[in-house]
Amino acid sequence: MLGVINKRMKAEIISVGTELLLGQITNTNAQFLAEELQSLGIESYFQSTVGDNPERIHEVLSIALERSDIIIFTGGLGPTPDDLTHEAIISFFKEKSLLDKKVLKQIENKFYLKGYKSMPPMNKKQAYKPKNAKWIQNKLGTANGIIWRVRTPFTFSISHLATIITFPGVPFEMKHMWKHTIITYLKKICKGSILYSKTLKFTGIGESALAEKIKKYFDQKNPTVAPYASLGEVKIRVTAKAKTNKQAKQLVSKTVKNVLKYTSQYFYGFDEETLESLVANELKEKKKTIAFAESCTGGYLSKRLTDIPGSSDFIKLNIVTYSNKAKHQLLNIPNEILKKHGAVSSQTAALMAKGIKKLSDCDIGFSVTGIAGPSGGSKEKPVGLVYFGLAKGNKIKTQKVLFGTNSSRSTIRFLATQFALNWIRKEL
Amino acid sequence: MLGVINKRMKAEIISVGTELLLGQITNTNAQFLAEELQSLGIESYFQSTVGDNPERIHEVLSIALERSDIIIFTGGLGPTPDDLTHEAIISFFKEKSLLDKKVLKQIENKFYLKGYKSMPPMNKKQAYKPKNAKWIQNKLGTANGIIWRVRTPFTFSISHLATIITFPGVPFEMKHMWKHTIITYLKKICKGSILYSKTLKFTGIGESALAEKIKKYFDQKNPTVAPYASLGEVKIRVTAKAKTNKQAKQLVSKTVKNVLKYTSQYFYGFDEETLESLVANELKEKKKTIAFAESCTGGYLSKRLTDIPGSSDFIKLNIVTYSNKAKHQLLNIPNEILKKHGAVSSQTAALMAKGIKKLSDCDIGFSVTGIAGPSGGSKEKPVGLVYFGLAKGNKIKTQKVLFGTNSSRSTIRFLATQFALNWIRKEL
Repeated sequence: MLGVINKRMKAEIISVGTELLLGQITNTNAQFLAEELQSLGIESYFQSTVGDNPERIHEVLSIALERSDIIIFTGGLGPTPDDLTHEAIISFFKEKSLLDKKVLKQIENKFYLKGYKSMPPMNKKQAYKPKNAKWIQNKLGTANGIIWRVRTPFTFSISHLATIITFPGVPFEMKHMWKHTIITYLKKICKGSILYSKTLKFTGIGESALAEKIKKYFDQKNPTVAPYASLGEVKIRVTAKAKTNKQAKQLVSKTVKNVLKYTSQYFYGFDEETLESLVANELKEKKKTIAFAESCTGGYLSKRLTDIPGSSDFIKLNIVTYSNKAKHQLLNIPNEILKKHGAVSSQTAALMAKGIKKLSDCDIGFSVTGIAGPSGGSKEKPVGLVYFGLAKGNKIKTQKVLFGTNSSRSTIRFLATQFALNWIRKEL
Repeated sequence: MLGVINKRMKAEIISVGTELLLGQITNTNAQFLAEELQSLGIESYFQSTVGDNPERIHEVLSIALERSDIIIFTGGLGPTPDDLTHEAIISFFKEKSLLDKKVLKQIENKFYLKGYKSMPPMNKKQAYKPKNAKWIQNKLGTANGIIWRVRTPFTFSISHLATIITFPGVPFEMKHMWKHTIITYLKKICKGSILYSKTLKFTGIGESALAEKIKKYFDQKNPTVAPYASLGEVKIRVTAKAKTNKQAKQLVSKTVKNVLKYTSQYFYGFDEETLESLVANELKEKKKTIAFAESCTGGYLSKRLTDIPGSSDFIKLNIVTYSNKAKHQLLNIPNEILKKHGAVSSQTAALMAKGIKKLSDCDIGFSVTGIAGPSGGSKEKPVGLVYFGLAKGNKIKTQKVLFGTNSSRSTIRFLATQFALNWIRKEL
């Protein structure tokens, strides 16, 4: 990730929507915008969330203008009466609101194209904007955003020129508008020194155990080294500031090497690399094919690997064999094995891997069978117990993992796919 | 959802973590906490996000204390040097920090139980807390939170007693602590009138088209009616305030009936109900079984339905037949059909559904075959084109849907599973 910094340029994200305050949706927009600002080297120290309420929008806007130069709103541009972000911004700055007839026509056309006889009257308000603002066209929906260079009110400690940018709350519309218009605008107004960062990703180790190995780097000022944990993985972010791109990259590269000296055993990838993208790349490069026989993960492993475009090159067939009958019929697992050792056993995992390899005629057969819960566990085979099998050439390996008996069904299923993808990655 | 309101009781969520400002993780914690506060009837008008920086944590804490009574922090309780939420709170209130030896011992024990020889020295700081605060035990990790009734500094416009609550940022730890300790505490201190809300969920219609049908209800003050949209669905939330639970429920129920008069065609469920949970319930109740043959969704449909606990009662076998060979071999689709009409065709979808029904010996065979992109599209069969097949008894039906040629692979895959689950729900 690379960006250009202007030290005076600070941005702040304001998410608008009562549904956010009620916890009915996750704020993925703030994450997207934050990541994009970071990659442009624009500093952002605060984010706020506020409901669809003009007075409270005024309050957060007022606080944001005191500490930031670029205020990015997301949400509240819809056609319904509770969508009032533009109205609130206009009244805050005591600006005139103008109906843009050209934009009204465009919105009407969008409805005709969708097969409507006329535009729902509610949508008319989406054609109003502050007099001096520019539109940000929304090609995927009817809610256009605005970009507005405006002087803060004189009641402010220091009156300054601020940039107000608004986006609708619908994530794919917002992202499309960001990528196709705003990013070019922001790149133009940002200049200064270079910010460059690289993220190292680890799995199979906890945050503090990993941090302990490299704690001496946490006091470094440039590049900075910061760890953070999420379900099934730990990341270390290394960020350098320098005058040129080359210098920043060199600084990061040196620290990355040092960090990996102590941690390479658990390292799996950089930045945007995911376990599934790495597995996909390896399979493509080595021209190998793979097939899954899943039980407790129920298609999740198949789903994750087919998220990758072009996965039909290396996946021909996957099977979710929930029942013993399916395991027997399709994967040829003898009923005696299922009876004696159970569906959740190293023996069954091995034969599932062997069976799917044969059925699919792939290079690698991989199996998962376990107890994802919440019911179905016993003292001997508790919830969270999962067996994995890997068949390659004439060899079959199995592994047994207990993913914490306190974990939820969704956690166990995710961790099982994480473990599976990491094992396959190592095997390749 | 039901809760008890105290009109003076306002809560505010502060998420701490530079990784949030950099957009490296999604803030699911704020959503969880917001939803829980709402269900307790505690009002929450603002959320903030701030980095791991003491001065900026002071700044947001100061703003939050001016407008809210309960300040809930999440994040920054980890063992690494950048985790400093407790330190920042302690310095803000100029309080003493105390090492709790009992808690230190507990943390050490957690490492012994995990097979460590000793606690990493870094974790010692997790045993410090403000002198007069109480611990919130973290049974799933080492980062305990605190609950602290503390008077705001005298520099405040009105000095008042505030409640500071802290949680670690790791979602499953935070949720466990919330459910097992804080929820009881908050219920005790909340009293007043009743808040009750119900969410209606719709699919197959856009936000403004749905809103237009029921716009007359948006001006209602009690209950309020608010719409919001997300990928593949629209929700309408109806919220009433009343003196008793019964009165609030009656108010909501009346408005819900009115709303459904105009929209029932697109309605699928209430509140926590999801398409997958509804399909699962119907299958269980009617003692029916189902099997999927997926192509472009690559296991996503199977994953979604097996997310539901107990899904092994009605799912025995699912197959991802990416290749034509697999479609032919396992589902008995004649090569001539695949050649003549292609894998993405109504004919293939029908035979896939028939084939998986026969192979699995289930009541319903369901198929998905389409072009998820980004490549593989043509003028005749563009990216986003998906065929669905449903075999039940002796009948086979198919449907063709074009999910927008501008959509991403992940959007198309999600919308295809959404359409599939909704069709199956209607069919049941």
